[in-house]
Amino acid sequence: MFTLQKTSSKTKARLGKLTTDHGTIETPIFMPVGTLGTVKAVNQDDLSEKIKAQIILGNTYHLYLRPGNKIIQDAGGLHKFIGWDKPILTDSGGYQIFSLAEIRNLKEKGATFQSHIDGSKHLFTPENVVGTQRILGSDILMILDECPPYPAEFDYVKNSMELTHRWAKRGREEFLKTDPLYGHKQFQFGIVQGGVHKDLRKESSEYMASLDFEGLAIGGLSVGEPTDLMYEISDFNTDYLPENKPRYLMGVGTPANLLQNVAFGIDMFDCVMPTRNARNGMIFTRNGKINVRNAKWKHHHKPLDPDFPSELCQRYNMSYIHHLIRSNEILGLQLTSKHNLTFYLWLMERIREQIKNDTYHEWYSGMMQTVDQKI
Amino acid sequence: MFTLQKTSSKTKARLGKLTTDHGTIETPIFMPVGTLGTVKAVNQDDLSEKIKAQIILGNTYHLYLRPGNKIIQDAGGLHKFIGWDKPILTDSGGYQIFSLAEIRNLKEKGATFQSHIDGSKHLFTPENVVGTQRILGSDILMILDECPPYPAEFDYVKNSMELTHRWAKRGREEFLKTDPLYGHKQFQFGIVQGGVHKDLRKESSEYMASLDFEGLAIGGLSVGEPTDLMYEISDFNTDYLPENKPRYLMGVGTPANLLQNVAFGIDMFDCVMPTRNARNGMIFTRNGKINVRNAKWKHHHKPLDPDFPSELCQRYNMSYIHHLIRSNEILGLQLTSKHNLTFYLWLMERIREQIKNDTYHEWYSGMMQTVDQKI
Ligand SMILES: [Zn+2]
Ligand SMILES: [Zn+2]
Repeated sequence: MFTLQKTSSKTKARLGKLTTDHGTIETPIFMPVGTLGTVKAVNQDDLSEKIKAQIILGNTYHLYLRPGNKIIQDAGGLHKFIGWDKPILTDSGGYQIFSLAEIRNLKEKGATFQSHIDGSKHLFTPENVVGTQRILGSDILMILDECPPYPAEFDYVKNSMELTHRWAKRGREEFLKTDPLYGHKQFQFGIVQGGVHKDLRKESSEYMASLDFEGLAIGGLSVGEPTDLMYEISDFNTDYLPENKPRYLMGVGTPANLLQNVAFGIDMFDCVMPTRNARNGMIFTRNGKINVRNAKWKHHHKPLDPDFPSELCQRYNMSYIHHLIRSNEILGLQLTSKHNLTFYLWLMERIREQIKNDTYHEWYSGMMQTVDQKI
Repeated sequence: MFTLQKTSSKTKARLGKLTTDHGTIETPIFMPVGTLGTVKAVNQDDLSEKIKAQIILGNTYHLYLRPGNKIIQDAGGLHKFIGWDKPILTDSGGYQIFSLAEIRNLKEKGATFQSHIDGSKHLFTPENVVGTQRILGSDILMILDECPPYPAEFDYVKNSMELTHRWAKRGREEFLKTDPLYGHKQFQFGIVQGGVHKDLRKESSEYMASLDFEGLAIGGLSVGEPTDLMYEISDFNTDYLPENKPRYLMGVGTPANLLQNVAFGIDMFDCVMPTRNARNGMIFTRNGKINVRNAKWKHHHKPLDPDFPSELCQRYNMSYIHHLIRSNEILGLQLTSKHNLTFYLWLMERIREQIKNDTYHEWYSGMMQTVDQKI
């Protein structure tokens, strides 16, 4: 499934290929988030051809509630339901149960919760989230985990990690004794927890590695801890992950976060930031980030970055984008969302080039400062 | 500006060409409404290449308030501001003053009103709406008129029509003594009023014709009167309009309304219906109209009309469109809006074909029934 092609000589950055039945993904990669089977405000053709997304993410919690497993199974899986024939990764729903569900209750068996839509009651277990993801037919499935908040007591984090380990073993067993439904291969990733505690991170990494998942994720970061601490734990954690498996840092992050974590050896990222911030008027560019709602753009009768290959830059002036966003026009959301994702995928391509040329170490920290500045 | 190419032998349907400096429009035509300089949820490339819009409409009232004349003049006019190089027609704002402004007051001089956005006070006169439309740089300008509600007393409608006539004369004079700002030609259309009173319609048509506008619009219909009455007045009214000028029926309508009014000799239409209804889940097709929110589409794992050339039909199944609209996803609005406009422009192309072949009279009433049925 995963081929490590090259490692940067002076950082831990890695170049790789992740092969699925829906196509090959070049890593490091960023996965746009398509919560409900749509990357908000972007159509599938643009996602593939303009943004050049190689893989997208779907949220099991959301899709399970709407449209529900039956519709998706009748459709022949999520790929067919949404008209997307490239790879899809689905999470297990664990994170959403804790952040969105009305009431939730964690037991050894699994997590019970009430839907945030209609209050109906549901149970997610390590086994049945495998079943749901078999129905979704995602190329990569994630195990059910508990993601503790930050800050949290050491004992809470340790107990939670141990529960996640027991769930991981059950989830892996369920995965190994069941089959894909639609004729294409599926892979399963484990999730390392342990909060910001290095001893727990080491223990969790070793345990997850022992279950021989096809890939491993670092969960429980980017949940409110300071950025430097996130970097410290991520850097530490990758030292305990197997070389030959893809590494996915969940829910991260800003362009600077991606650049730094690639240097720590991360291969895969996902985050709602490029699309969510786009809807609020924040645009990421290779020269820094801007808020298009600011008055300074009102009279800017020029494109933002005329040579950048996004529709927003190629086709429109900033005074118009400012007008659209300030007037709450849907076209504004479409253009900024597409632009930010195009930028994120463009950045990953530059990252891969730099690793290929073994120039990543001399390039990335300057780029981190550039993309992080406000313009 | 306008060339009448052919008239149907058994109806009053006409085939024509309307030439502007931004391109030639084949009539009969439908103009998508781009209120604030954007046809809601559709980008300019799709509008031109997929939907095949030949001309769009902008609302002077809305654009005057946001972004305002200064921004648009700095941008070099509305075409440059929004990145659209095909023809644009702008209304005068009269209709919006009466339907949207908080407080309005009609005097001989013009209409004073308070902005529906911030309550600020403004005055539109027959002269200054020409000035604003010079700044917009639209290819076709509309005069300031008063559009009476339905029902209204005869005396009210008569007095209102006479005010519109005096305004029309002043507006035409202002137009003739001022010049375009951006080097391309502009044309001005008069607006016939008179409510549902035939004597007034005749009088208004003759007066507007005497001012020698480049085109004439029928205003004051589709404001709540029964459809049959709208048809009766439109049919009557076109008999009093000059043959050699384009005829624009303002704010109309459903696909069936277009088919019927083409038979009465109308050349141009505009309406928010295809986009507004799209956002509520109503889809127009060549086989009838549907509400995609209905449960019957939930399990429809097939395209709506597989041979129809819209992204919605070519690329997605209806179960997915149902899911998107029910989940309030922006992609749902994009796809239904694009589809409905594609259908409206497709219908106009079929209409022109039928007139060309002189088969319009035997085709249109069957087509009216088909497109009007609920499926
Ligand atoms: Zn497939
Ligand atoms: Zn132009």
